[in-house]
Amino acid sequence: MIRYEEIIQGIHPADRKARQEASTYIDGLIKPMGSLGKLEELAADIAGITGRVHGNNLKKRTVVVLCADNGVYEEHVASAPQEVTVLMAHAMAAGRSGMTVLAKEAGSDCTLVDIGINSDEPIPGLLTRKIAKGTANFTKGPAMTREMCIRAIETGTELVCDLRKDGYTLLGTGELGMGNTTSSACVLMGLTGVSAEQAVGKGAGLTAEGYENKKRVAQLALSVNSPDPEDPVDVLAKVGGFDIAGLTGVFLGAAYCRIPVVIDGFISAVSALAASRLCPDAADFMIPSHASKEPGFACAMKELGKEPMLLMNMRLGEGSGCPLAFHLIDAAITMIEEMATFEEAAIDGTSLVDIREH
Amino acid sequence: MIRYEEIIQGIHPADRKARQEASTYIDGLIKPMGSLGKLEELAADIAGITGRVHGNNLKKRTVVVLCADNGVYEEHVASAPQEVTVLMAHAMAAGRSGMTVLAKEAGSDCTLVDIGINSDEPIPGLLTRKIAKGTANFTKGPAMTREMCIRAIETGTELVCDLRKDGYTLLGTGELGMGNTTSSACVLMGLTGVSAEQAVGKGAGLTAEGYENKKRVAQLALSVNSPDPEDPVDVLAKVGGFDIAGLTGVFLGAAYCRIPVVIDGFISAVSALAASRLCPDAADFMIPSHASKEPGFACAMKELGKEPMLLMNMRLGEGSGCPLAFHLIDAAITMIEEMATFEEAAIDGTSLVDIREH
Repeated sequence: MIRYEEIIQGIHPADRKARQEASTYIDGLIKPMGSLGKLEELAADIAGITGRVHGNNLKKRTVVVLCADNGVYEEHVASAPQEVTVLMAHAMAAGRSGMTVLAKEAGSDCTLVDIGINSDEPIPGLLTRKIAKGTANFTKGPAMTREMCIRAIETGTELVCDLRKDGYTLLGTGELGMGNTTSSACVLMGLTGVSAEQAVGKGAGLTAEGYENKKRVAQLALSVNSPDPEDPVDVLAKVGGFDIAGLTGVFLGAAYCRIPVVIDGFISAVSALAASRLCPDAADFMIPSHASKEPGFACAMKELGKEPMLLMNMRLGEGSGCPLAFHLIDAAITMIEEMATFEEAAIDGTSLVDIREH
Repeated sequence: MIRYEEIIQGIHPADRKARQEASTYIDGLIKPMGSLGKLEELAADIAGITGRVHGNNLKKRTVVVLCADNGVYEEHVASAPQEVTVLMAHAMAAGRSGMTVLAKEAGSDCTLVDIGINSDEPIPGLLTRKIAKGTANFTKGPAMTREMCIRAIETGTELVCDLRKDGYTLLGTGELGMGNTTSSACVLMGLTGVSAEQAVGKGAGLTAEGYENKKRVAQLALSVNSPDPEDPVDVLAKVGGFDIAGLTGVFLGAAYCRIPVVIDGFISAVSALAASRLCPDAADFMIPSHASKEPGFACAMKELGKEPMLLMNMRLGEGSGCPLAFHLIDAAITMIEEMATFEEAAIDGTSLVDIREH
């Protein structure tokens, strides 16, 4: 296992020259400049990531789903029983959950990982990379030790290095675990200093009363642990979860391996932010998908300088926005590969170049 | 050709019972209620349109693109020369334009139609349904006669009836024609009473000066023609275009044939609005795609009670948002067909039903 500091040292920015070449090429396609909006940006970003303007094949793809339980569950912050983590993991392994059916439809595999489910039995279909059986209740002390946090991050980076060896060229990020919108809100607060009011949402479906409690719990977690905003590992260890720390590693690993990696919803976006705080260049390799309804999502995306492409009012988690974004990535690649250029389309001596001028 | 009044009389609302059955079924899938947001609404809407909860196959699909020129082009409202209409029609027929490459990627055909290009030569690959060689300049009088407008509408409805006979189960809507964001803005103003400031945008890329001129031209068109807001055919005839009137017919025809039809950008949305003014039930069969950057688009969508699913900053036209929406439609159908229900997923006597309660 490569140490995470080495991974970070091995991350270099996207290839600016390839990105610029792609942009110039896209400006030469038969359309008003910029008129395909985010499809154009996406195609250019992919060129920057892979270092190639043409011939990008991102068809071998998987959504990496890290499953873990959270000790803060005890504080009644989740709308469902903790056992649902195990039950949903079984449904994912059977390919019958929301994200897994969408992944299949988008030609994607799923890489399901137990990084800390509160259960002794291994779940068939999940890779076992358990750090512990759930985190500690972070309203009473840190969620995990610094060592465990680093192990979770390195679990994520190693997963990506293994996936690269297996030929994967595009990744999505997902998670499963009751209570993980609370830990995500706490990590966001710890990294950025935003208030519980700005960071905490209703998760999968809390009542008004439950929502007030969740904000109180998040505030308490920050007071009890005083995480150091300058030290993302400290924030992740004290008020995060194994899923968030692991996904932070997935984002770092993708940047290290120079593979595009799609951000899903709130938990994924907070993990992406933690990764970009550890290594700002890692953000070059991240692609947004949909706009989560969780209030902290917009804050995390703004910090990352990213804007979602899909407005679906989704709040399922699991990585469910990633397969939808995979289709948009396919569309962007098709645009750059198959649209005619102004030169190719010149007809009977009259040129289409005129439409570009504006 | 069936008269458009008969088409309108033959339009009945979507099947509320099938829609409700689909919603109830979707609430029984293993996820918090409503957590797949617009995918859930989309799947229910499709059930309402087809009358079937399961077994919907919308794979045979095409984007209907109506191409026409606009007399108002003379007023310097477009950023590209009028000849670009013909040149781009050739590029579309060759399958090399923005929309046509995206359509192919989404498994869609394209049905390209010359409904009024200002050219004598037929363009290979386009169906010839020319009403006239472009409309008249509507700053000096009506764009077309009422009879021509009705012929354009009925051309659209007939195209859809033919496509249904050919087995098509899903339609997209597109257009091509220099100057057609101006005619769309005028139709929107005529139908809703909004100001030029609210309806007029920069199209494919006008300068600030060109934008001021375009607003002035739109205002002039309304003053000169005084279209009757209570009579959508009068509005379309006086300040519309053959493409807009024809697409109005496509939306009516889709409702008549009970085929889902996707709205693209501004011109398509204004045509959808005209269709819904002629027959409010037609809106049940319309599916939004992306959010156009044209300011009038949001107004038209609000009037239709629809919200776009994609936030791509696109402003190409051609129907380019439709292939992207086709992927989301596929995802919605996959969700309803393949996700497990709570009953199916009950494991070891413990039920997942708990996650539904919230």
